[in-house]
Amino acid sequence: MANIKPSLAKGTRDFSPREMEKRNYIFNILRTVFKKFGYNEIQTPSFENLSTLTGKYGEEGDKLIFKILNSGDYLAKAPEEFLNTRASNKIISHISEKALRYDLTVPFARYVVMHQHEIVLPFKRFQIQPVWRADRPQRGRYREFYQCDVDVVGSPSLLNEAEFVLIYQEALVALGLKDFTIKINNRKILSGIAEVIGKPELIVDMTVAIDKLDKIGLDGVNKELLDRSFTEADLDILKPIILLSGSNNEKLASLKQVLSASSIGLRGIAEIEEVFHYLGSFGVEKLLDAVVEIDITLARGLNYYTGCIFEVKTNEVSMGSIGGGGRYDDLTGMFGLKDLTGVGISFGADRIYDVLEELELFPVSSSVSTQVLIVNFGEETYGHTLPLLYNLREAGVAAELYPAPAKLKKQMGYADGKQIPYVLLMGEEEIASGAYSLKDMVSGEQQKFSLEQLVAFLTKNTISC
Amino acid sequence: MANIKPSLAKGTRDFSPREMEKRNYIFNILRTVFKKFGYNEIQTPSFENLSTLTGKYGEEGDKLIFKILNSGDYLAKAPEEFLNTRASNKIISHISEKALRYDLTVPFARYVVMHQHEIVLPFKRFQIQPVWRADRPQRGRYREFYQCDVDVVGSPSLLNEAEFVLIYQEALVALGLKDFTIKINNRKILSGIAEVIGKPELIVDMTVAIDKLDKIGLDGVNKELLDRSFTEADLDILKPIILLSGSNNEKLASLKQVLSASSIGLRGIAEIEEVFHYLGSFGVEKLLDAVVEIDITLARGLNYYTGCIFEVKTNEVSMGSIGGGGRYDDLTGMFGLKDLTGVGISFGADRIYDVLEELELFPVSSSVSTQVLIVNFGEETYGHTLPLLYNLREAGVAAELYPAPAKLKKQMGYADGKQIPYVLLMGEEEIASGAYSLKDMVSGEQQKFSLEQLVAFLTKNTISC
Repeated sequence: MANIKPSLAKGTRDFSPREMEKRNYIFNILRTVFKKFGYNEIQTPSFENLSTLTGKYGEEGDKLIFKILNSGDYLAKAPEEFLNTRASNKIISHISEKALRYDLTVPFARYVVMHQHEIVLPFKRFQIQPVWRADRPQRGRYREFYQCDVDVVGSPSLLNEAEFVLIYQEALVALGLKDFTIKINNRKILSGIAEVIGKPELIVDMTVAIDKLDKIGLDGVNKELLDRSFTEADLDILKPIILLSGSNNEKLASLKQVLSASSIGLRGIAEIEEVFHYLGSFGVEKLLDAVVEIDITLARGLNYYTGCIFEVKTNEVSMGSIGGGGRYDDLTGMFGLKDLTGVGISFGADRIYDVLEELELFPVSSSVSTQVLIVNFGEETYGHTLPLLYNLREAGVAAELYPAPAKLKKQMGYADGKQIPYVLLMGEEEIASGAYSLKDMVSGEQQKFSLEQLVAFLTKNTISC
Repeated sequence: MANIKPSLAKGTRDFSPREMEKRNYIFNILRTVFKKFGYNEIQTPSFENLSTLTGKYGEEGDKLIFKILNSGDYLAKAPEEFLNTRASNKIISHISEKALRYDLTVPFARYVVMHQHEIVLPFKRFQIQPVWRADRPQRGRYREFYQCDVDVVGSPSLLNEAEFVLIYQEALVALGLKDFTIKINNRKILSGIAEVIGKPELIVDMTVAIDKLDKIGLDGVNKELLDRSFTEADLDILKPIILLSGSNNEKLASLKQVLSASSIGLRGIAEIEEVFHYLGSFGVEKLLDAVVEIDITLARGLNYYTGCIFEVKTNEVSMGSIGGGGRYDDLTGMFGLKDLTGVGISFGADRIYDVLEELELFPVSSSVSTQVLIVNFGEETYGHTLPLLYNLREAGVAAELYPAPAKLKKQMGYADGKQIPYVLLMGEEEIASGAYSLKDMVSGEQQKFSLEQLVAFLTKNTISC
């Protein structure tokens, strides 16, 4: 075996015990909330047939898909001409028939189509799995990262949209966030605006320009709009939309005026109103005003969404969006199953992790596993320490005996390194007297206990498995 | 977009909500037990540098590693001569620098070496992640499957071996298994036997032959041994070993006689005795006799293990081993970190799944998520149903309102399909009377409740999130 200095593949990460505890803390909270709303977990394989994935993410996306080399003599059937010309691109389909999952949406669409006869519609699923992209790695961008998607297919009801607002609210509050904004828009409103101006084909240019308001101001947006074939007259119509402000109700009222001539625009407004109406019925009007915000500049994957669009950001830390989603009317069309509407949201687990870290919102307990370390004073004591160890675990207390009678300092260092909250000293002297010293590693205090008191104390004062 | 009939990549599986619940049931039990014994979870990336993996699994293993094609113009630097001769094998390292994880052990070794300055030894970790192998798929063998590994590195103490027996015992009992055998052997005993015969170089041939006793009987084994260069005199020495029977203590006594001239053999016996001694101190002598069995034919990855070897099988179902492991004295040597001893075991999650399925050991609750479906009788009722839905979830009850006022039969079918245990009928009539009908979907019984009673009843009688 060659003796290589090991390294990680570019753009990938190891997760240490402490990082795993924190990641699982996030995933478990999301999982609990998703289930409470009736969503069930599914998983799809890490790799799909290449043909399932290609053509779904645009030309740029296709390049970022990790392809898996066929096994065996994979070059045997590669066309001569492509080999001779080193036509990397053309040869791919001849030497690779599998590829790593690029997102959770396309595999989910495949899942729905393949399992259409066994699932009951509406099908509410969530999925928490890694995806892989051959992006250039940079701070906060990895080649392997987790997506957490919640979607329902087969239900056009806007109740689902209202519930997604509740899911965001409940999950983010459960994670400890105090100040965040759930932005909502509707693709039909954007279509309506483009229609009113008479330039439906420029909808993308329009939203891209409007989206920059925060950064470049109204003059900047106007300049960009003019550059993108809009006229001064268009700008007059757009101005109240770009500068849309006030409460959600005020924004809706302004939009109704501007879009009075566009039936699709009015439908978009009505959809948002319906979502708000449901949220009101749920009894969360206050939440609505404080957290939900109509943001007409929100576009997210414009070619994809057909109804409501969501995006979530925290206001406590400077960070891009920590979640987003919307309604798409043709999830499974790419696999031949037409007219299946879907709506879903996702959580950006990596960014949420960074936010919780920066705000110090991870509970101490989420980075602890072993609750008590029994110091090893040698084999002579095993007759007492091993039965205690057994009983502690039976009582649900994660416990360890240091596996060798090393120096006390080393054993204490081990407890420190693993953040074990209690250390038990149970040497021959303590065994003889029947009084065992338990050291609280946080306060440094030491207390004496009998065997029975000890198990009772630890059962009560530690996190049980 | 092409309209393709979608399919799964060969040898991969989707996991439906019900399968996921069952899989998570297994993983959660394992996780809890591992933590109780002081093991912490880590994760490593799905792909590693190809150089990290090649050469670690033998020539056959290398062929089964899934290689990932480099991005971009991957053929640009491929040597001309290899392209011209279609030298698939030689060209791999030029067009692929990453590969999917083949097992959890090599990435763990890389992890230990790379993180050696931040981890505290002994380092106790568990890891539950998928691995990928380009095997020919067949019943029960997949190209993507999960491994669940528990290992400790940096501790030569046989206490660890004793605790692994306890971990198997506790996990399998927690999973509901009633009759299983934890087989134990020691590589040093096998070395001792080969030494006593004077043919240490034939240790592999010897164990391969002895391993077949169950299938081909003593005569068959003897014949095979003769074919593999053993003599009649060797057979005389081997006979009491091959036919080793009785209690563990009787087996140990016989082995001591046979191996009296081999110091390494006697050390192997002493190691097993020490493990048994610790198990005795833990207070589980009975377990020892009933569950643990010395099996001298157990070899598992002979070139790899150096001390105790474990294998677990259920006696309730015909099935290969559902777990195994052992001690290896040079885990990280391949990456330049010498003399780090390790010992670990793994659980075969897919096989355990099949065993629990066959024995019907999955709890009903593990396949349930939503606890109550509120039938949708139209928007007029939302003023009552939505606040109730909100309150139920606040109380930790996973609840859904069917998202449209569909026919009752359809809504009931939805509840059936999702195995929702309760359905609530809350139409205009019920709202007017204040008495809501709750249907128990298992018994078919229907009971009337006031709003307060309803929340209290469901909180008490369902599984909370």
